[in-house]
Amino acid sequence: MIKSPTISFDESAELLVKALGANNVADVSRVLQPLDVTETLEQLERLNTIERALAYRTLPKDRAIEVFERLDAALQADLVAGLQDSEVAEVFAGLSPDDRVALMDELPASVANRLILGLSEKERALTSTVLGYPQGAVGRYMSPEFVITHPELTVGETLARVRAQLDDAESVYTIPVTDAGRNLVGVVSLRDVLRADAAVFVSGIMKSPLSVPATQDAEEAARYCADAKVLVLPIVDAEERLVGILTVDDALQILEDAESEDAARAGGSEPLRRPYLATPVRSIVRARVVWLLVLALGATLTVQVIGAFEATLEQQVVLSLFIPLLIGTGGNTGNQAATTITRALALGDVRPKDVLRVFAREVRVGALLGLLLGTLGFTIAALAFSVPIGLVIGLTLLGVCTMAASIGGLMPLLGKAVKADPAVFSNPFISTFVDSTGLIIYFLIATSILGL
Amino acid sequence: MIKSPTISFDESAELLVKALGANNVADVSRVLQPLDVTETLEQLERLNTIERALAYRTLPKDRAIEVFERLDAALQADLVAGLQDSEVAEVFAGLSPDDRVALMDELPASVANRLILGLSEKERALTSTVLGYPQGAVGRYMSPEFVITHPELTVGETLARVRAQLDDAESVYTIPVTDAGRNLVGVVSLRDVLRADAAVFVSGIMKSPLSVPATQDAEEAARYCADAKVLVLPIVDAEERLVGILTVDDALQILEDAESEDAARAGGSEPLRRPYLATPVRSIVRARVVWLLVLALGATLTVQVIGAFEATLEQQVVLSLFIPLLIGTGGNTGNQAATTITRALALGDVRPKDVLRVFAREVRVGALLGLLLGTLGFTIAALAFSVPIGLVIGLTLLGVCTMAASIGGLMPLLGKAVKADPAVFSNPFISTFVDSTGLIIYFLIATSILGL
Repeated sequence: MIKSPTISFDESAELLVKALGANNVADVSRVLQPLDVTETLEQLERLNTIERALAYRTLPKDRAIEVFERLDAALQADLVAGLQDSEVAEVFAGLSPDDRVALMDELPASVANRLILGLSEKERALTSTVLGYPQGAVGRYMSPEFVITHPELTVGETLARVRAQLDDAESVYTIPVTDAGRNLVGVVSLRDVLRADAAVFVSGIMKSPLSVPATQDAEEAARYCADAKVLVLPIVDAEERLVGILTVDDALQILEDAESEDAARAGGSEPLRRPYLATPVRSIVRARVVWLLVLALGATLTVQVIGAFEATLEQQVVLSLFIPLLIGTGGNTGNQAATTITRALALGDVRPKDVLRVFAREVRVGALLGLLLGTLGFTIAALAFSVPIGLVIGLTLLGVCTMAASIGGLMPLLGKAVKADPAVFSNPFISTFVDSTGLIIYFLIATSILGL
Repeated sequence: MIKSPTISFDESAELLVKALGANNVADVSRVLQPLDVTETLEQLERLNTIERALAYRTLPKDRAIEVFERLDAALQADLVAGLQDSEVAEVFAGLSPDDRVALMDELPASVANRLILGLSEKERALTSTVLGYPQGAVGRYMSPEFVITHPELTVGETLARVRAQLDDAESVYTIPVTDAGRNLVGVVSLRDVLRADAAVFVSGIMKSPLSVPATQDAEEAARYCADAKVLVLPIVDAEERLVGILTVDDALQILEDAESEDAARAGGSEPLRRPYLATPVRSIVRARVVWLLVLALGATLTVQVIGAFEATLEQQVVLSLFIPLLIGTGGNTGNQAATTITRALALGDVRPKDVLRVFAREVRVGALLGLLLGTLGFTIAALAFSVPIGLVIGLTLLGVCTMAASIGGLMPLLGKAVKADPAVFSNPFISTFVDSTGLIIYFLIATSILGL
C-alpha cells in the first residue's frame, strides 16, 4: 500500500493464496521472502488459521519471532496450537512480559502454566508482576523493565545507567526518577539528559511526573498518555511506588482495541478478536447473534404497542404507511445523540456528573431538529394526504425527535454510571424504548387529532 | 480524574463556572493556578467560547502558550478572536509549523495572512513547506524540523549533531539517514547510537527505513506509523527525498480525529469539531440535521412501498404489527455488517479488492443469522398468532437477514472504491435500501403464503 516493492500487495496476496492452496512451501517462502515485518503481518492476517500456521513456519527465524510478537494475542494463541513445543517455548520467552500475559489469557490454563514454568527465574518474576493486576487494568499492559535514576545522581551517572540497560529497558527516552523508597518523584527525558552538563544533578533538571495507578482502567490510562502527549507514562502502586511504564505504542494498541470495541458495539455487535478475514464465519455469527436477539426481543414490544392500537389502524390503514418513517427517524435521532455522548465520554470531554447539562442540551437539540423535520413533514403529508394527517405527522416528528435525542443522550451516561459499557447499555435500550414510545406518541396524537 | 490534587476535578469545574459567572477574575485565576497543562485543557474544553477566552487570559504566560498549543485548531481559532493582536502573534510564532498550518485553516484568510507575515523568515519557510501539501495529506501534519545524519558519518559525529539540535528538532529519538542527494537511505535510533562505539560509521548500524510520501492520506500514514510501532515516520517527496517527519503523537491525534469522525458518521451525524460541551447547540443541530433529512427522505420510499400494498394491509391489519420488528432487524443486521467492514477498512484488514470474499462471507453470515432468528420467529409467531403468520415471519427474517448482511457488507467497500467515506456512503443507503427491500420481501411472502 505504501512502499512500492517490485510486486504489489494484492499480487503478493494472490500468489500466497495460490501457493498455499497448492501446498507449495517453496513458493510460499518465495512470496514472503521480500516482505518486511509489517507487510508479512498484513499478509498473515488475511489467511485462515491453518494457512497462517503453514505460512508462518516458512519465515526465517528472526523475522518469525518479530512477527509473532506483533500478532494479536488471539492469533498468537491460534498459532501456538500449530507449532512444536520447542518453538512455542522460544517465542514465549522472547515476548515482553505484558505481551506474554496477554497471550496467556488466550491459552488453555494447562498450556499457559507449562510455558511459564519454562521461563528463566527473572522472566517469570517480571511476568508475575504483570499477571498480578486484574484484566482491564493498565498494570496488565505495562512493562516492568525500565531504567530509573535518582535525584542525587548526576546527569553523567544517569547516562551511564541508560547505556548499561539499553538492551533490557522497554524505553529509555523518558527516565523515571525515584527516591530511596522507590517512590516516583520526577521524570527526565533523554533529550534533557543529553542537553545538560554531565556534572549537573538530576534533581536540577527533572520535571514533575505524570503517573497513573496500576489498577486504573487501561483505556483511561492510555487516553491520559495520549492526551498528555508523553512517550512513557510511569505506573505506580497504591503507595506511589514505581512498578512499571506504559509506552506510547502500547497505549496506541489499547486505544485501537477500545475503539474497535466501541465501533462494533455502536453497530450492535461484539468486537471480533481477530482481523475480519482471519475470523471464521461462525465466530462472526456468534459476535452478532446475541445482539440481534436482544434487539429483536426488545422490538416485540412494538408488536404489542401496535396490537393495542389495532382498532385505530383498522379504521385508518393509512396510518401504517408512516410507521417505518417515524420510528426510523426516532431511532436515528436517538442514535446520533447516543453516539455523540459515547464518544465524548471516551475522550473525557463529558463526565457522568454532567448529566443535567447534557440532558438540557439534548432536549434543545432534539426540539430544534423536531421543529425542522416536523414542519417539513407537515407540509409534505398535508399536500400528499390531508391537513389532519399532516398535523399528525408533523407533531409526532416534533415529539419523537425531542424524546429520542434526550433519551439517546442520557443512556450512555447512565450506562457509565452503572459501570456498563456506554454503547452496550444504550443500543438496545434506545431501540426498544424509543421505538415503542415513538409509536405510542404517534397513535395518541393520531387518535386525538383524527378523532378516532 | 487520575491524579489526586487537593480538590477534585468536579469541584474545580464547579468553582470555575461560579467564578466566571460572577466575573471574578481573581477567583478564576485561583482555581486554575494549581492545575497542570492537561488539567487546564480539560477545564477549558468544558466552557463556552466567551468563558474560555476569559479563563485563558488569567493563565500565567508560559502555561498559556503550552495550553494554546494543545487546544484543537477550532478552539484556537475561537480564542484568537478574543486575544489582542500582540498576544496572537506571540502564540502563533510559538506553534510548530504543522500546528500553525492547522490553525491557519480555521482562521479568516486575512487574519492568517497577517499572522504569517509577522513570522521570522525561517519560520515562514518552514510553514510554507507544510502549507504546500493538500489538506488531508500527511505533509500537512509533518514536522519539517528534524536532525539527520549520513552513512559516512560516525556515531560520535551523529551524537554531536543530535546535541546541537536538541532545541529545534521535533524528535531526536529516531534519526533519518540521508545521502548526498537528500534521499532517505536509512534510520538509526538514538538507542542504537548510544549503544555503538563512537568511531563506528552510521552505515554500519542503520536500519532500512520505513517512509511514506508527503501526499499520502494522513489517516493511512498515521495508521502505518501505529502499525509499524515507530516513534517517528520519515516523510519523503516524489523523488524519495526526506522532507519531514511524522511523530507518533501527531499520528495519535490524526487517528483520534479520524475515529471521532467514523464514530459520528456511523451514528448518522457529522463530527463536532470541538469537544461536546464546548460546541454551541446550533452547531450540534447543524451536524445532525442534514443526515436526518437525508435518512427521512430515504424513508419516504417505505411510505410508498407500504402504500403499494395498502390493499393487502386492509385485508390483514395484523401484518402491520410486525413492520417495526422486521425492518428493525434488517436494519440492525445491515448495520452490524457495515460497521464491521468499515472498521476493517480503517484498520487495513480488508481492501476494496476483497469485495468478493467479503460478499461471500456476509451472505453466509446473514443466512445463518436469518436461519436462527427465522426459526425463533416462526415458533413464537405460530404460537401467538397462526402457523401461516409464523411462516411469513420466519421466511421474511431469513430473507431480510441474508439481504441486509450482504448489502451492509458491500456498501463500505463500494464507498471506498468511489473514494467516499465508507460510513457516509453506507448509512443512508442501508437504511433506505434495506428498509424498502425488506418490506417488499415481507409483503411478497405474505401475499403468496396467505393467498391475498
